[in-house]
Amino acid sequence: MNQPIQDRPVLDFWFEFASTYSYLAAMRIGTLTDARNVTVRWRPFLLGPIFKELGWDTSPFNLQPAKGRYMWRDMERSCATLGLPFRRPHPFPQQTVLAARTALVGCEQGWGEAFARAAYVAEFGEGRDIGSRETVGAILHTLDLDPAPVLELAHSNLIKTLLRRQVEEARQRGIFGAPSFVTPDGELFWGNDRLEAALSWIESHQDRTAS
Amino acid sequence: MNQPIQDRPVLDFWFEFASTYSYLAAMRIGTLTDARNVTVRWRPFLLGPIFKELGWDTSPFNLQPAKGRYMWRDMERSCATLGLPFRRPHPFPQQTVLAARTALVGCEQGWGEAFARAAYVAEFGEGRDIGSRETVGAILHTLDLDPAPVLELAHSNLIKTLLRRQVEEARQRGIFGAPSFVTPDGELFWGNDRLEAALSWIESHQDRTAS
Repeated sequence: MNQPIQDRPVLDFWFEFASTYSYLAAMRIGTLTDARNVTVRWRPFLLGPIFKELGWDTSPFNLQPAKGRYMWRDMERSCATLGLPFRRPHPFPQQTVLAARTALVGCEQGWGEAFARAAYVAEFGEGRDIGSRETVGAILHTLDLDPAPVLELAHSNLIKTLLRRQVEEARQRGIFGAPSFVTPDGELFWGNDRLEAALSWIESHQDRTAS
Repeated sequence: MNQPIQDRPVLDFWFEFASTYSYLAAMRIGTLTDARNVTVRWRPFLLGPIFKELGWDTSPFNLQPAKGRYMWRDMERSCATLGLPFRRPHPFPQQTVLAARTALVGCEQGWGEAFARAAYVAEFGEGRDIGSRETVGAILHTLDLDPAPVLELAHSNLIKTLLRRQVEEARQRGIFGAPSFVTPDGELFWGNDRLEAALSWIESHQDRTAS
């Protein structure tokens, strides 16, 4: 059953650090994909520019109060079911540009996933403000990374350009929310609840290719 | 394992005939709830008045083109997986007041579920316009019901008032989309993908009550 890693199908995992359901997906995706011999490509991006085109200046969970109340209750329930810590952060949504840029540095250097998971736990497990340089630095420190050079790189034009391209690619792939999953053949699945559907899609597509 | 029907927990299934994902839920819910000894109360309602308060004059799938494109592709995939017929209706969303009122008559007279499922198949399986009196009459006919007296009742002040109350109750329960599921202890679950979570919630709550 085990395939060589280079032959494994790759699932693109598009996540936004302000997204509550991306936290759930980030904490679940490793176990689920390992079990199915799927490799995850972690793709941090920003929803802000995509929401702005719809005329939204904040999260839809703030714009639609009933949906927001539901989401916070659902996060509480879902985290309890998954055994994850949960604490509602203030403010919501947070400024996530620095975290996204830092994650992009990490994706280039091989610690992107570890940073993303730690940042999500800080934000939605401990209610900390990950918008600040101090918190991002503290998270890097827990990963045994020297914050100063990482943060300097995070502010470089290279990384700024990479993040803008990332958002542009998300838009081109039809992404309108987070988390989103894109299969090797370009099928988009939106929402933490659809992660299993994305993996089933890959599985059934592989079977077809192999036969 | 089998409980007497009057002792079974009741899951409220709130559905809107214009809602694509309510079609999927309507076709799945019977099998899933039978297997868990849960009784479904079918609750037709209208999302229009709830969307209007947010300033929306049509479906969010029309207001957000990327989300709309995703939804139609996802419906195609999901129907294929579930073995359900799928055909995109025009116009979308449809006028669903008559269908909702007719379903309410059916809920009072014991054929609400059969009508709802038949109307969903007509709309999203065959692409028919269920907004018309002719289509609703034809659906009633296939259920061996005489359309004339049913449609007369559907236009009565009693049923109009019942539907308005239904919408009001949905709003009070925090419902903002469809399908939505409400457990006996008032927990809300939104979306076809969360039907299993609602049933798991009922199961674990029952265990706690029984112990």
